[in-house]
Amino acid sequence: MDAIVDIAVQVFLRRGYDGASLDQVAAAAGITKASIYYHADGKEALLARGAGRALDALFAVLQESAAREGREIDRLKHVVRRTIEVTVERLPEVALLLRVRGNTSTERWILERRRRFDRLVAAIVKDAQLKGQIRADIEPGLITRLLFGMLNSITEWYRPGGGLGVEDIVAAASRVAFAGLE
Amino acid sequence: MDAIVDIAVQVFLRRGYDGASLDQVAAAAGITKASIYYHADGKEALLARGAGRALDALFAVLQESAAREGREIDRLKHVVRRTIEVTVERLPEVALLLRVRGNTSTERWILERRRRFDRLVAAIVKDAQLKGQIRADIEPGLITRLLFGMLNSITEWYRPGGGLGVEDIVAAASRVAFAGLE
Repeated sequence: MDAIVDIAVQVFLRRGYDGASLDQVAAAAGITKASIYYHADGKEALLARGAGRALDALFAVLQESAAREGREIDRLKHVVRRTIEVTVERLPEVALLLRVRGNTSTERWILERRRRFDRLVAAIVKDAQLKGQIRADIEPGLITRLLFGMLNSITEWYRPGGGLGVEDIVAAASRVAFAGLE
Repeated sequence: MDAIVDIAVQVFLRRGYDGASLDQVAAAAGITKASIYYHADGKEALLARGAGRALDALFAVLQESAAREGREIDRLKHVVRRTIEVTVERLPEVALLLRVRGNTSTERWILERRRRFDRLVAAIVKDAQLKGQIRADIEPGLITRLLFGMLNSITEWYRPGGGLGVEDIVAAASRVAFAGLE
C-alpha cells in the first residue's frame, strides 16, 4: 500500500491531480486498476493518503516539546527549522499538499487541515508579538503566510543531492526571516 | 481574443492545466471549440498567452529605471515592491505562471523565461552583496528563491477586496525580508 501511495504521489505531481487517472497510477505501479481498488478506495483516497503524510508530519512538529515550551520566538524558530526538515524529507508529499486546490471534498478536507496548521502557527506568532519578541507592526496571519510562503517554495526548487543541505536552507531561511537581509 | 485568454486562465486554474480541455474553455466562454481555434492555435497557445502576460509584466519591471539605476539594494527593493504590485494586478496570470510544470514544450519555454527572470534578480542580489548592502553569508540564488517564494505565495492567499491592500503587503514583505522579524 505504501508503495502504491508513493507512485500515486509521483503521478499526481507529474500530471496534476485533476489530470491524472487511476489508469496512469496503475500503469506506473505495474499493476491492474482492480488491484489499486483492493488497497484504496480510488483516486481521492490515494490523494488523502499522500497529502496526509505531509500533514501528519507537520502537525507532529507542533507536538514536539520545543514547539510547545519555552520562549515563543524559540518555539517559532523550532517550527521553522522542523518545517524545512519535514519538507526536505517528505518533498513529494509536501509538494502535493501545496498543490491541492479544493475541487473535491477530499481536497477541501486537506485544505481545512492546512488552514488549521496555519492558525496554530499564527497563534505562536501572535504570542511572540505580545511578548515583544518579534515586530508587532505586521498582522500575525500575514507574517505566517509570508514566512510559510518562503518555506513552501522549497518544494519548487530543492533538488535532493543538488549540493544544498538542509542545514544550508535552515540557516538561510532563518537569517532572511528573523534577522533580515540588510 | 483577450477575453478568451481571460477565461482560459480561469479554467486552467480551476481544473489544472493538464486536467483542463479546450471543450471546457469553449463552454466557459459560451462559444464553440472551432471559434477558439480561429483565435488561438489550441490549448498550449492559450497557456502561452496567459502566462506570457505575467512574464511580460515581470520583465517590464526589470526595465524600469528604478530597477536599473541607483544603489543595488534600492533596485532590489523596487523589484520586490513592483513584483507584489504586478502579482496583485495580474493575480490569475501570475498564479497560472507559478503552476506551470514543464510537460510540454510551451511549458518548458515558460519555465525557461521564469528562470531567466530569477537569474536577473539574483544578479542584483549578488551586486548588492558585493557592495556590502545586504548580508553576504547566503548564496544570491538562494536569497532570490526564498524572497520570491515569499512573494509568489501571494497568489495562494491574497483575495481581492479582502481588506488587505497592496501597500499592506509591500510593507509587510519588505519588513520581513529586509529588516527581519526580530
